[in-house]
Amino acid sequence: MNNTNPTIGVFDSGFGGLTVLRALLPLIPGANYIYLGDTARLPYGSKSRETITRYALSSAKFLQDQGAGLLVIACNTASALALEELQQTLPIPVIGVIQPGAQAALATASRTKKSIMLTPSDPNGKNPRNSPIALQRPKEAHALVLATAATTQSRAYTHALAALGLRATEKACPLLVPLVEEGWIDHPVTAEVLRIYLLEALAQAPDASILLLGCTHYPLLKPLIETTLHNLHHPMRIIDSAEATAQAVTAHLSATTSSEPPTCTFYATDSIEKFQRLGSNFLGQPLKEVHLLDLGG
Amino acid sequence: MNNTNPTIGVFDSGFGGLTVLRALLPLIPGANYIYLGDTARLPYGSKSRETITRYALSSAKFLQDQGAGLLVIACNTASALALEELQQTLPIPVIGVIQPGAQAALATASRTKKSIMLTPSDPNGKNPRNSPIALQRPKEAHALVLATAATTQSRAYTHALAALGLRATEKACPLLVPLVEEGWIDHPVTAEVLRIYLLEALAQAPDASILLLGCTHYPLLKPLIETTLHNLHHPMRIIDSAEATAQAVTAHLSATTSSEPPTCTFYATDSIEKFQRLGSNFLGQPLKEVHLLDLGG
Repeated sequence: MNNTNPTIGVFDSGFGGLTVLRALLPLIPGANYIYLGDTARLPYGSKSRETITRYALSSAKFLQDQGAGLLVIACNTASALALEELQQTLPIPVIGVIQPGAQAALATASRTKKSIMLTPSDPNGKNPRNSPIALQRPKEAHALVLATAATTQSRAYTHALAALGLRATEKACPLLVPLVEEGWIDHPVTAEVLRIYLLEALAQAPDASILLLGCTHYPLLKPLIETTLHNLHHPMRIIDSAEATAQAVTAHLSATTSSEPPTCTFYATDSIEKFQRLGSNFLGQPLKEVHLLDLGG
Repeated sequence: MNNTNPTIGVFDSGFGGLTVLRALLPLIPGANYIYLGDTARLPYGSKSRETITRYALSSAKFLQDQGAGLLVIACNTASALALEELQQTLPIPVIGVIQPGAQAALATASRTKKSIMLTPSDPNGKNPRNSPIALQRPKEAHALVLATAATTQSRAYTHALAALGLRATEKACPLLVPLVEEGWIDHPVTAEVLRIYLLEALAQAPDASILLLGCTHYPLLKPLIETTLHNLHHPMRIIDSAEATAQAVTAHLSATTSSEPPTCTFYATDSIEKFQRLGSNFLGQPLKEVHLLDLGG
């Protein structure tokens, strides 16, 4: 590895965090990346806080031992449940996906508000009930967060969004990860499951205008989510926290100017063949080599 | 615990093995049962042989240390991938679910054959193409096995059925466990997923007459599977290996005559609250108390 460039550890329970790495590569091309997918112990989404924290700590320590100078918790569940403990335990900066996702929601809400404020006022001085101003005037922005059961139970997005003045409704979507992993990212069954989940969520949050994808598997479903929202006549601005997280990391490492190509090293705690095969869908390019790692689980 | 009665350890990666315990309770009412669901590390179905064997060994040793005199591997994936190593390592009898399931398929095939032989022969000495005799005459019975990806990849059912003279086609159904755990056991989405899986499987095995449920979650879907097969105009005899395994254990402990009520002790390696809540669906009765166990994963 090149010692003059930053070494960034990226950690997820499985493949999903590769969408964060994918977003990082063009933004910080000169870095050395070490990715760890704790595939032997996935999914984290249905497990308890104690278990997830134990797993995340052992994975984070491994990445630190490998020379990571900054750690990205590219997993919503681990960010929701274990980030604070990781930040307190590790001597290196630790960035999760929740805070950047919430910040991106705020930026979107602000842009929306600004565009509403720029709308020419009614020449008659009236605000008819169906104008955008009348619809959105009295309320703060409302974000709908789709995530795993463990992430929603933690209420981490609700707290992060509330701290920024945004309302949040969280919806657990336990079937979406298995559907993505089955490869059914554009399948009628997945469309129907999305329709059911979104209908249930929008019944709770009919005024939500921002949809936050609170799981790193979900960006692969973005086109189908857009179609489903269109069919439900409920267009929303979709925020992918993988993108937002990559931008937060870039801001943290703003001094980096190297133009060397990145190096990527991949570790998985279970079948490296499967990681290599499925991972390329998430990373958007082939994974040349994956190392098997035993964390003692 | 009562020392005159057998202590039976029942092990699964999660809740599914409770369907085996449910079948055992009326058959061997005088036993002490210790159930361990390795919920912190589930699902096993998508993991590698090495990982599953390591997990199963640590769980089995715990049950032996708790006094189990016989161990039931109430998990198809662990039975498929780790049974031999468990039997070689542990000094107590270890019974898996694959062999009993295959035996039950053979018994069903034999019954079917017998009933065909008893069909009155055509008085004209002819066998029209659509008669049952003509349809089933030249072939051995063909079983379709629905299971997790890890179980089908192991080909354990194919080998066990072939040893009994039965043909097998195995079909991986990765979405069924998440659908059962979502509680969608009688849901249109689950019906559609079953229809897709069964159509794909029957295209490979159009003459299959026996359907073996090769995952302990699937008995909860039995009514929906029956409906789906009916709608596909392809009735099959459905074999639930939970029932077959309970009978194999009974045969092994044939000397047991105690009429005392059973005692059941439950351990889980993750959220005991969730185990208690979901587990009652599988066991068919409430779980009074669940102990949290740390296996060091």
